[in-house]
Amino acid sequence: MSEPKSKNIVWSESQVAPEQREAILGHKPATLWFTGLSGAGKSTVALATEVALVERGINAFILDGDNVRHGLNSNLGFSPEDRTENIRRIGEVCKLFCDAGNIVFSAFISPYREDRDLVREKHPAGSFIEVHVHAPLEVCESRDVKGLYKKARAGEIPEFTGISAPYEAPENAELIVNTAENDLDACVAIVIKYLEDNGFIPAK
Amino acid sequence: MSEPKSKNIVWSESQVAPEQREAILGHKPATLWFTGLSGAGKSTVALATEVALVERGINAFILDGDNVRHGLNSNLGFSPEDRTENIRRIGEVCKLFCDAGNIVFSAFISPYREDRDLVREKHPAGSFIEVHVHAPLEVCESRDVKGLYKKARAGEIPEFTGISAPYEAPENAELIVNTAENDLDACVAIVIKYLEDNGFIPAK
Repeated sequence: MSEPKSKNIVWSESQVAPEQREAILGHKPATLWFTGLSGAGKSTVALATEVALVERGINAFILDGDNVRHGLNSNLGFSPEDRTENIRRIGEVCKLFCDAGNIVFSAFISPYREDRDLVREKHPAGSFIEVHVHAPLEVCESRDVKGLYKKARAGEIPEFTGISAPYEAPENAELIVNTAENDLDACVAIVIKYLEDNGFIPAK
Repeated sequence: MSEPKSKNIVWSESQVAPEQREAILGHKPATLWFTGLSGAGKSTVALATEVALVERGINAFILDGDNVRHGLNSNLGFSPEDRTENIRRIGEVCKLFCDAGNIVFSAFISPYREDRDLVREKHPAGSFIEVHVHAPLEVCESRDVKGLYKKARAGEIPEFTGISAPYEAPENAELIVNTAENDLDACVAIVIKYLEDNGFIPAK
């Protein structure tokens, strides 16, 4: 772990054990880190999975790429350094949510492998689940829900992932959700099954 | 609300209503923003209140000044700008915890009134509770748990709140917890009573 810039700070330990939180909440903490191209369906799958979990009495929550940039990361743009800092901060927030016992989804393009691996390293073993939400670039571009690919092709958006900036696909994701080959219900079922099979949430 | 630096971002709405989270968790969301001098007892009162709430089945969680600086804000120091950015980020994280239905404590000196008011403004009405954890400077200095006042008086720590940097006390805090006149149990009881009386948690 890198040294904090500020000195004279002391680590205060919570006197609440993770097991106490788990007993209250009825599930284990987890960060489900959704990564993938714009238009791959990260937010869509995350939003639907959040609903499915809440219907089961599990208070899941999404940190969304679009939403967080209006708040915590409103002072960051899309340069490589800013993208890295964006992901670093989100990763730290995910860790805080895990420390608090929550199941949290992050739905960010998060194109750089090194950035994602840094977030993984920050998490306690077993609590970080990398989910590659995948669809081929041409599928994402044909969806173009927000009209961003069109703008990117026209040169109106610099450093657009997949067009003018790289996307480094995960090599060892815990889970791959292919949204070109599965409908939304099937995608949600894949995520839920992973959580059940690995003991994060009770089987229904 | 200020415009985010990044354009081409769209607000995604969660399809989960706050009432659904409240029904699952059994309490309303709240940020308890503890502010006060170093040594006033912010972390001590927050840690003990966290335990008391968890014993009642309420999964409260603390964002601690010392802890967050090891993670989310490890790239910030103690200059006025860095303190402001420190508080801004923490405020946004508190808001995210509230959005997720949680009761979250922040235990930071947070010396500037304007910074705290900005955090308040970010929160939905009624979910931000400013708690002035108060003890006279001479009491805080005589405690000097971390030896910081001694270092500050020796000039070894620049910009130390109360000694070489200002502390702007809250003018309209929802709650004042005087740690010079109450023992720890009484301080915890003051906070718990506020949460009960204002409908954040069920009465015991």
